[in-house]
Amino acid sequence: MDNRPIGVFDSGIGGLTVVNTLIKILPGETIYYVGDTARVPYGNKSKKRIQQFSAEITEWLIKKDCKMIVVACNTVSSLALDYLQLKFSIPIIGVIKPGVDNAVNSTRNFNIGVIGTQATINSNAYGKYLKSINPSIKTVSQSCPLFVPLVEEGWIDGDIPMSIAKVYLDRIINAEVDTVILGCTHYPLLKGIIQLILGEKINLVDSGQSIAQLVKSELSNNNSLSKNCLGDIHCFVTDDATSFSSLASRFLNRDIRKTIIIDIY
Amino acid sequence: MDNRPIGVFDSGIGGLTVVNTLIKILPGETIYYVGDTARVPYGNKSKKRIQQFSAEITEWLIKKDCKMIVVACNTVSSLALDYLQLKFSIPIIGVIKPGVDNAVNSTRNFNIGVIGTQATINSNAYGKYLKSINPSIKTVSQSCPLFVPLVEEGWIDGDIPMSIAKVYLDRIINAEVDTVILGCTHYPLLKGIIQLILGEKINLVDSGQSIAQLVKSELSNNNSLSKNCLGDIHCFVTDDATSFSSLASRFLNRDIRKTIIIDIY
Repeated sequence: MDNRPIGVFDSGIGGLTVVNTLIKILPGETIYYVGDTARVPYGNKSKKRIQQFSAEITEWLIKKDCKMIVVACNTVSSLALDYLQLKFSIPIIGVIKPGVDNAVNSTRNFNIGVIGTQATINSNAYGKYLKSINPSIKTVSQSCPLFVPLVEEGWIDGDIPMSIAKVYLDRIINAEVDTVILGCTHYPLLKGIIQLILGEKINLVDSGQSIAQLVKSELSNNNSLSKNCLGDIHCFVTDDATSFSSLASRFLNRDIRKTIIIDIY
Repeated sequence: MDNRPIGVFDSGIGGLTVVNTLIKILPGETIYYVGDTARVPYGNKSKKRIQQFSAEITEWLIKKDCKMIVVACNTVSSLALDYLQLKFSIPIIGVIKPGVDNAVNSTRNFNIGVIGTQATINSNAYGKYLKSINPSIKTVSQSCPLFVPLVEEGWIDGDIPMSIAKVYLDRIINAEVDTVILGCTHYPLLKGIIQLILGEKINLVDSGQSIAQLVKSELSNNNSLSKNCLGDIHCFVTDDATSFSSLASRFLNRDIRKTIIIDIY
């Protein structure tokens, strides 16, 4: 057993969708969540910067004595996971692998769509990993740069996000996929609209949701599960994001009283 | 005379609208432009972070031997101009004053609208300065958080930006203003749509456009105008923003061959 916290991070608020699934499956774990609100978003930044930013956060979480790091951000998982795993000896888990495994189990026609930020899509991390598992899988991918600002603005239903989603998802619809990976932790908040446009027959895979099971089995294999009944959630941000605490409370359906501002660079 | 460059900076690409007006009025000046693409956008960040980011850039431009700094960003001008002017002895000019002066000269009914990023609008920098010039002026202000991502995505006309602008500008229309300040250097790129929604009778004031005249008179008063016939434009960014050079060339109608990536923090 190991009662030390799990470190989870994202560029901003989106990774809380991952925390939400983690606390359901692992209610006894304490979580230290870092949102890099001073430099959000990551999706339009370069590999070099994303590696630098995520290494700074990982180092901070390791100093806080975390037993494992969960990269709750598709952009970081796509561009910096190998880099972080080489640089640090602590177990570090990203969202790509569990998302892909879930999609491969779900697809029947082996046509899979992937949507994400510009950086995630340009990296082709999902496409490469899907091919490595099954070379006959066809993928069609699409970046949706306005989805993160829409979610951060709270415009997650109604005509405007619907019109924007229609433009972005047009290619995905025409590709006759049966499974679409939501390759950004913000996107589950637009799930209703995405499902409406793609149709009920298409299975949406939320990478963030898939990761919780992997975290559980890794901790279990290492005999590192917490023995507490109910863990705590501690939120840290790199800038005074107005409304972070209230948004976090809404995301997690739990009172997040205080979000602490930290200096990591 | 002083042939040293003018330093101009913004969080990203938006400040190039200011450069565009500067080179028309002052074609002999050489410009060093910094876009902080590693940390863009600033509009949703705190005062403390905006002060820190802009001081780092100003310091870099001073080391490059600039004779004057033009803050081509409304968010920085609203939250950090006093701070920068206290910290550095070089002349530093922001966009608020020239924008306000232009609006006050334009209004007939003394009802002025201001649109900008969340940080600019929350600071009420425009409102305070308008009141200080003429206490009878009424202002109505509105933040438009999706305008910057729309411009960065290149969606500047058509139904989607139109629907988004309609939501944001509703309060401005109802306030019966006759003048609206575009309080963000990205917004001139959405001018067509904004004018269409507000109607032809409303005068749009582009703060960035107003600043060039002030820069000219300040340089002239200090006997610091360049004696060159045609100045150069050098672009620097803090991250590898794909498409920055091509966007810059389009903005400035001039070939920007190379954008240099710099490390300022």
